[in-house]
Amino acid sequence: MPGSVGQVTTRRVVLFTGDDPLLLDSGAALAPVEVAYETYGSLDETASNAVFVCHALTGDAHAAGHHGNPARAGWWDNLIGPGKPLDTDRFHVVCANLLGGCQGTTGPSTINPADGRPYGLRFPHFTVADLVKVHRALLARLGIRRLAAAIGGSLGGMQVLQWALDHPDDLDAAILVCASARLSAQNIAFSAVARASIVRDEHFQNGDYYDTGRRPDVGLSVARMLGHLTYVSHTSLEQKFGRRRSNGNGGPGHGFDADYDVEHYLHHQASSFLERFDANSYLYLSRVMDHYDPFADLAAAQQRLRGCDTRFLVVSFDSDWRFSTADALEITDTLETAGVAVEQREIASPHGHDSFLLPLPAYHATIGAFLTAA
Amino acid sequence: MPGSVGQVTTRRVVLFTGDDPLLLDSGAALAPVEVAYETYGSLDETASNAVFVCHALTGDAHAAGHHGNPARAGWWDNLIGPGKPLDTDRFHVVCANLLGGCQGTTGPSTINPADGRPYGLRFPHFTVADLVKVHRALLARLGIRRLAAAIGGSLGGMQVLQWALDHPDDLDAAILVCASARLSAQNIAFSAVARASIVRDEHFQNGDYYDTGRRPDVGLSVARMLGHLTYVSHTSLEQKFGRRRSNGNGGPGHGFDADYDVEHYLHHQASSFLERFDANSYLYLSRVMDHYDPFADLAAAQQRLRGCDTRFLVVSFDSDWRFSTADALEITDTLETAGVAVEQREIASPHGHDSFLLPLPAYHATIGAFLTAA
Repeated sequence: MPGSVGQVTTRRVVLFTGDDPLLLDSGAALAPVEVAYETYGSLDETASNAVFVCHALTGDAHAAGHHGNPARAGWWDNLIGPGKPLDTDRFHVVCANLLGGCQGTTGPSTINPADGRPYGLRFPHFTVADLVKVHRALLARLGIRRLAAAIGGSLGGMQVLQWALDHPDDLDAAILVCASARLSAQNIAFSAVARASIVRDEHFQNGDYYDTGRRPDVGLSVARMLGHLTYVSHTSLEQKFGRRRSNGNGGPGHGFDADYDVEHYLHHQASSFLERFDANSYLYLSRVMDHYDPFADLAAAQQRLRGCDTRFLVVSFDSDWRFSTADALEITDTLETAGVAVEQREIASPHGHDSFLLPLPAYHATIGAFLTAA
Repeated sequence: MPGSVGQVTTRRVVLFTGDDPLLLDSGAALAPVEVAYETYGSLDETASNAVFVCHALTGDAHAAGHHGNPARAGWWDNLIGPGKPLDTDRFHVVCANLLGGCQGTTGPSTINPADGRPYGLRFPHFTVADLVKVHRALLARLGIRRLAAAIGGSLGGMQVLQWALDHPDDLDAAILVCASARLSAQNIAFSAVARASIVRDEHFQNGDYYDTGRRPDVGLSVARMLGHLTYVSHTSLEQKFGRRRSNGNGGPGHGFDADYDVEHYLHHQASSFLERFDANSYLYLSRVMDHYDPFADLAAAQQRLRGCDTRFLVVSFDSDWRFSTADALEITDTLETAGVAVEQREIASPHGHDSFLLPLPAYHATIGAFLTAA
């Protein structure tokens, strides 16, 4: 029976200092950079059994186990643990909050020691490659030079792909779940609406809201409702909510706040998001996704991949309309053309983009089998 | 060669007064009700050649011709005019701004004579059937008892369907374009996000923003950007914008406002919308769509349609993911089961829901042929 990794703690480590700053793709240097991370399972003697989990836009380092309340497990707890696809009896799993995030790793809400104020929009811009640089610095600190696998969904998958491009010798295996190598105009547009709702919120104050007692909560709520809505499918919303009104008197409500159950659900998503996420991090990390385009120079990308001995698994879900199977196939084709070993799977699921977080048997079996074959 | 109806003017008429108020489905009485409307082409001697155009959520009475500048034509000018599918050499076309609208017809922004203040959220709630009541009152005033056709897209199609249900003897022909008889959970959810952005805007002031110098422009902008984004398709955005950045320096922009062309486009959509639309009207009319569910009691609906001699045409577009062919087929099936004559057409178009506004040859040919067959 698959089990739980049990109680875990988030650790923090300073990886870059003034003497040894993080050199970003933009040319800027950033220090200090502290990173929040968790690990599950034991590192073996040769440090060869590590798996790095890259999280998505609004994720964090707490991927598995719990922080005291077993009922509140990490965001990928169904995948990570003893006997689970990311089997902690076999693997040493590492997950870290992203650079620019807001849950323990240095980001826009961090105090800039240079002036004693939160960075806000003075935080430097960064790229997916910069996210990978920080992950690698963490692994170096942990004494890990090569990974048994890197795995990630959505923005997490972008990090895995970039990792293979920048350091083709780092990874035995790479698992990209509902990832895209190039956001579409529609993808960018959805993020643009979310960002507009944040930056136009009067309480945004050009990003310097931290110590004012006013935050762009309305903007961030709308961003979350919209984002979440695009991470699920027409079918899953229809099955889960349809036109039900559980809280009403049976007839149509006459207000403009929540009436239908699906509205209550979205409002709840928004309010719980406000408790854990920072608007500036949302802006930075969503923009990182927009800008990601590693195959813009396709020949150069394939040249970098040639000779890469990483085994790839590229997974998509048939109802995911934000990051579709077409996006997955573009990655697959590019890898194959470069002579890289790649398996591609489209999993049937009604749950849209959020499928990557769910314990779907075919999905978990695919990941488990891929890792077992190593 | 198809021509233009030329210069037209919007007229206004008071249709309901204190002595003869509009009796709404809710039981409320509303007076006065003034309606803005336009007509194109001549009414024949027997008043038998009238076609009523029902507009969508953000439309208005100005469907064809121009108000002085021929370059700025009405929203359905490509469909209405001499030699066009709604041929004004043959038909007398009438279009009126909806009850609850903001472009000449009584709505939330109208001064309530009872207290001298704009109604705001004190405007009574109304239904699609109430919209039809106002249309019929206008036609009665114009001396028209039966229509050669009623036509509408989206919310306009809902009005046409309700018209046939409530007054099956009124219409020779009914044309429903990208309409639905029941919004899905996803549809409601998109409108819920748009409404949340309006009602949570600090300047909304519970709807009483008219005389304060502050309006919920941010909320209405976000609502429009989101709405518009769902009215076009992944493919059309990709073809039109892709990942282009025309206004930048070639590299990624580092702000969080518009960078990609698709963002500039959405921002432009929002700012032009603010000039012509009222946030309260958006709330009321979007809620009217949510609540519409004429087939909730299917047997009763079919009973009402039995014996209806109206010829129906139900049109959908293959890339319309807000109001899909599945929605059209549900209407078609219900009509057919009731023994009503109905033709159904899915038109190929990459332009999503907004296809109904475009001069697509197959679409216009279908409407023209259906009206010619009368």
